[in-house]
Amino acid sequence: MTEDPQDAIDAASEQRQRGRDPRVYDHTAGDVQDGIPFVGAGPGDPGLLTVTGKELVEEADLVVHAGSLVNSELLDEYCADAETVSSVGKDLEELIPLMRDAHEAGETVVRLHSGDPAVYGAALEQMDALEREGVPTYIVPGVTSAFAAAATLRTQLTLNGTANHVAFTRPQGRTLDAEDDHVSEFVEMGDVTTCIYLGTHAIPDVMDRLLADGHDPDTPVTVVYHASWPDEDVIEGTVETIGERVEDAGYRASALVVIGDAGAGANYERSYLYGDWANRGDTESEADD
Amino acid sequence: MTEDPQDAIDAASEQRQRGRDPRVYDHTAGDVQDGIPFVGAGPGDPGLLTVTGKELVEEADLVVHAGSLVNSELLDEYCADAETVSSVGKDLEELIPLMRDAHEAGETVVRLHSGDPAVYGAALEQMDALEREGVPTYIVPGVTSAFAAAATLRTQLTLNGTANHVAFTRPQGRTLDAEDDHVSEFVEMGDVTTCIYLGTHAIPDVMDRLLADGHDPDTPVTVVYHASWPDEDVIEGTVETIGERVEDAGYRASALVVIGDAGAGANYERSYLYGDWANRGDTESEADD
Repeated sequence: MTEDPQDAIDAASEQRQRGRDPRVYDHTAGDVQDGIPFVGAGPGDPGLLTVTGKELVEEADLVVHAGSLVNSELLDEYCADAETVSSVGKDLEELIPLMRDAHEAGETVVRLHSGDPAVYGAALEQMDALEREGVPTYIVPGVTSAFAAAATLRTQLTLNGTANHVAFTRPQGRTLDAEDDHVSEFVEMGDVTTCIYLGTHAIPDVMDRLLADGHDPDTPVTVVYHASWPDEDVIEGTVETIGERVEDAGYRASALVVIGDAGAGANYERSYLYGDWANRGDTESEADD
Repeated sequence: MTEDPQDAIDAASEQRQRGRDPRVYDHTAGDVQDGIPFVGAGPGDPGLLTVTGKELVEEADLVVHAGSLVNSELLDEYCADAETVSSVGKDLEELIPLMRDAHEAGETVVRLHSGDPAVYGAALEQMDALEREGVPTYIVPGVTSAFAAAATLRTQLTLNGTANHVAFTRPQGRTLDAEDDHVSEFVEMGDVTTCIYLGTHAIPDVMDRLLADGHDPDTPVTVVYHASWPDEDVIEGTVETIGERVEDAGYRASALVVIGDAGAGANYERSYLYGDWANRGDTESEADD
């Protein structure tokens, strides 16, 4: 490592202010590019990796993965011939030279993040540091755990008239100041499905704060542990009851918390996507992404 | 069609209030189940479909897809042997019997939505109506266009200290009342990456409202048209400039609008995921999904 990773981040940020990387225009998302791909492994099930992601990890000589956050079934199924290294416990000063040296030695290297790298992924700091070392990188998107949780719950995160919006958020703690915790504001809006990442251990505290802020104790809260993994579990409750239920279940990590009626599959109104609007030729009305 | 689809929706909602469907507990997300899968096609690129989604559409006799929202390359590559039907212009009264009859005739039917079905997908109303007709259904999650946009922009939607949260939202219009439009509130929070779906045609109006609400005209806004498609395009600007630029480009649909510093790849702080926190054994600190 020739320099402090934060220096590489600052230099890359400064570079971006002067203009986009030409690869932004030269490639489309999903293109296989030169260098090390940062692949979203999806929520856990090997079948929920993308086709391109699967091809990349199958061809890799070295897969640096997110340890216990990536389902070992996926590594067993697709990475049997590769060297696999967990990033857990390794800082940037160790990870960057590891990937750089393998890449420079002609090995095919893949960095495998859980979910999608754009959501709480800490991918960009590794990419910036690698690029500074002369190693090209790019992102291959993946399925985030909130979408797997919705599939498990047989619901949508948006439901017409009930949940018009979705928030991906994390609660205050050692790495987020209290004033940057927006859980209560999202819930207050009334028609937002609030998905809490990185907050399993903090569920009782989050719910206590919602109660202190005057939110309805009966607001539905659904917790999906290890969505799409063999030991997937669903715990249902409300702002008032979910904290104790999750503590009783013993989960301290790897669960997705869904606050709002959509998670509970509440009443909703038939949309106009397949009704009159579609027949009026509205350019956006049939846009179901 | 034996009844009004809204009746089926209401009956299904009522049923859910009495208790979860046992399939919620009997299956995990990503399981192939009995009945018609509602598959997220991903943002467009055939390689960004999931492995399970690809297997399902490849085996299908009938694929009902979201018309021009699903990249024809994907249909050509995976559905060459299947009958393909666009849902565009068809209401529930036409779609449901179409899928039910094919299923009951022993055909393998797949419903292919763009992106992920849980995000602005209008999947659940079709599922509820089909279930009411005795046809089992389930969801296979997919990659949403915001993740493809982030991959194209070589950024994350969350960036430590810059963007701690993400909102998926849509602007007011014929299907959303003004009081349920939260774009300005999300932007006001300051550390939320606001991703606007279904709003390409309304970008100038959205920006005018943000200016009227007193938001900084220099707030970065990045628009990604057809993320991951061959004709993908990136338009950059600010709250003040983006409306005219998108109008000049002529885009009226199929673009994702990203408001905030993360879309512009602004400065961020090295996280603690690969630094000291990881070595302290915090159960959530390495959770990168």
